[in-house]
Amino acid sequence: MEIKELGEFGLIDHLTKDIKPQNPSTVKGVGDDCAVMQYENGRQVLVTTDMLMEGVHFDLQYTPMKHLGYKSAMVNLSDVYAMNGTPRQMVVSIALGKRFGVEDLEDFYDGLKMACDAHHVDIVGGDTTSSRTGLAISITCIGEANPEDVVMRNGAKETDLICVSGNLGAAYMGLQLLEREKAIFNEQYKEAQQKEGNKGVDDTIAQPDFSGREYLLERILKPEARRDIVEALASAGIKPTSMMDISDGLSSELMHICKQSGVGCRIYEDRIPVDYQTASAAEEFGLSTTTCALNGGEDYELLFTVPLTMNDVVSNIEDVKVIGYITPASEGQKLICRDKSEFNLKAQGWNPLKD
Amino acid sequence: MEIKELGEFGLIDHLTKDIKPQNPSTVKGVGDDCAVMQYENGRQVLVTTDMLMEGVHFDLQYTPMKHLGYKSAMVNLSDVYAMNGTPRQMVVSIALGKRFGVEDLEDFYDGLKMACDAHHVDIVGGDTTSSRTGLAISITCIGEANPEDVVMRNGAKETDLICVSGNLGAAYMGLQLLEREKAIFNEQYKEAQQKEGNKGVDDTIAQPDFSGREYLLERILKPEARRDIVEALASAGIKPTSMMDISDGLSSELMHICKQSGVGCRIYEDRIPVDYQTASAAEEFGLSTTTCALNGGEDYELLFTVPLTMNDVVSNIEDVKVIGYITPASEGQKLICRDKSEFNLKAQGWNPLKD
Repeated sequence: MEIKELGEFGLIDHLTKDIKPQNPSTVKGVGDDCAVMQYENGRQVLVTTDMLMEGVHFDLQYTPMKHLGYKSAMVNLSDVYAMNGTPRQMVVSIALGKRFGVEDLEDFYDGLKMACDAHHVDIVGGDTTSSRTGLAISITCIGEANPEDVVMRNGAKETDLICVSGNLGAAYMGLQLLEREKAIFNEQYKEAQQKEGNKGVDDTIAQPDFSGREYLLERILKPEARRDIVEALASAGIKPTSMMDISDGLSSELMHICKQSGVGCRIYEDRIPVDYQTASAAEEFGLSTTTCALNGGEDYELLFTVPLTMNDVVSNIEDVKVIGYITPASEGQKLICRDKSEFNLKAQGWNPLKD
Repeated sequence: MEIKELGEFGLIDHLTKDIKPQNPSTVKGVGDDCAVMQYENGRQVLVTTDMLMEGVHFDLQYTPMKHLGYKSAMVNLSDVYAMNGTPRQMVVSIALGKRFGVEDLEDFYDGLKMACDAHHVDIVGGDTTSSRTGLAISITCIGEANPEDVVMRNGAKETDLICVSGNLGAAYMGLQLLEREKAIFNEQYKEAQQKEGNKGVDDTIAQPDFSGREYLLERILKPEARRDIVEALASAGIKPTSMMDISDGLSSELMHICKQSGVGCRIYEDRIPVDYQTASAAEEFGLSTTTCALNGGEDYELLFTVPLTMNDVVSNIEDVKVIGYITPASEGQKLICRDKSEFNLKAQGWNPLKD
């Protein structure tokens, strides 16, 4: 079906007809000028937004629309968890060109809904419009928290332990794999076209073999926001002193926490959690595993600090690792390597505004 | 200054350093994963979002960045007023290509802040990223209202009066003027370039003369959200039974209200408010003034319904006009012309998803 046949409102009806509010705080969802929410007395409202642009944040040559929807939701949910909050509502704007059909949008929304359902989040509105050029996605997520539970980036204190969830660098290696296969595919395609003309091109191109690398692809294409970690911390009676999610890379995020908290840090190379597949792929690509873990973005793991007294408790939480501690600002932001040499951390993470 | 020199966070710091929260409900603004808001007990939270794409929603050949910022904010504020609410916070995402400099973004933010200051709205966050192609803007505005004050689109009842604020069709005629002058400019530019080469081109092109049309340009380039009308209605003790802002055209919006309220309507051609400049420009372009008023979008006036008993009160509010009344759904959605002939309303308003 063509999008223009449905029109904007037909399209919105079509896409949102089976979206039913799940939260009592959702008073009015899709279908008016605004969504309306009402929280209990004393709860705080959290709002986060992320914009994803084709060619900058995603490549449709290897990103299925359903995965794109799922990921677009997850990166926003991750920001709410990074405040120690609970995501509740989402508004979704999408601008797309004529090359897209209704089925593409359905796939996008399927992924979006799958992520929202898993996290009990209501899609309460948005904007669906056209683009002259690439696909653009903008999502705003609204969440809530008790005022005393909110964790910002500015609360890290000297001697606090620095912790991360999961493992790092896997999404970056997944991206490298996809980019390499894309280059190979495009080269083969060009060759096949020269040889065979337009027909028969598909048959002559070998499908990429990602076996043994599935985890890396999943990390880049289908990241998971770490609600489980936020819940585990609460169950263990730990309120982090600072927290953020790792979207641009560990170095860059840790430097944000240090800057906003007015502190320094020491992290240890041998403590940074890296998956076996990440290390193996990094070796194949001739990259340093530690560099990938420090500067590779899009892992959407949580980086947080806890008081030193919580050492035993936090060390017992599954999938959380203590990687270092907070120091006075005067001691800088240091990485201690396996050979005991020290380096200053650099924010070499992903910068969307760079060339 | 080039954007890449600043980097994303430098750029955000630069743009937001003088944004200070104005609302007690803003607990935490720019600078963390989420903005945090806390409303009084019993207040409802309103959320609206709009996406503006270059080449679809605006043309940078005749839209200064400052006006674009102002308008991007206003279209969102307008949605909150259309719920009978008060806008409080805004998150702003912008994706832009390499041809833009920091000064462009500053101009955009200047316009944005001017609109937000005038309406006491806090900019509490957003996302600044790059685009491979055109400029993309996505704004989410958060507002509040007492639950009993919120006005939706679904409350219009038989015999209710249909009212509009201001006048209609002016933004559409402003757009026609700008598009005509753009075509003339581009033609002259091509000719001058053929004749003179690249130097001296600017001198040979006549500046367009918009005298006597200033109001139309202001309406398309610098629309105003009608807080004054919302306040006037409250002062007069009127709570509309339904309300929305006119962004796509009167016909289209009225049909939304009728559909969502399960009613019909009769509006009268001779009651539709049109400015003298709109009528004069429409005549020059050989267009029907009524068609412009019915289907021209982007006026951002308010369309609302009030109980018939409020006739005298609403008629006394400055800049509000009663244009018809609500009928049973079975009587359809009718326009009564000056010659008493009747037509079915059609949603011929702006459709961003159309060719």
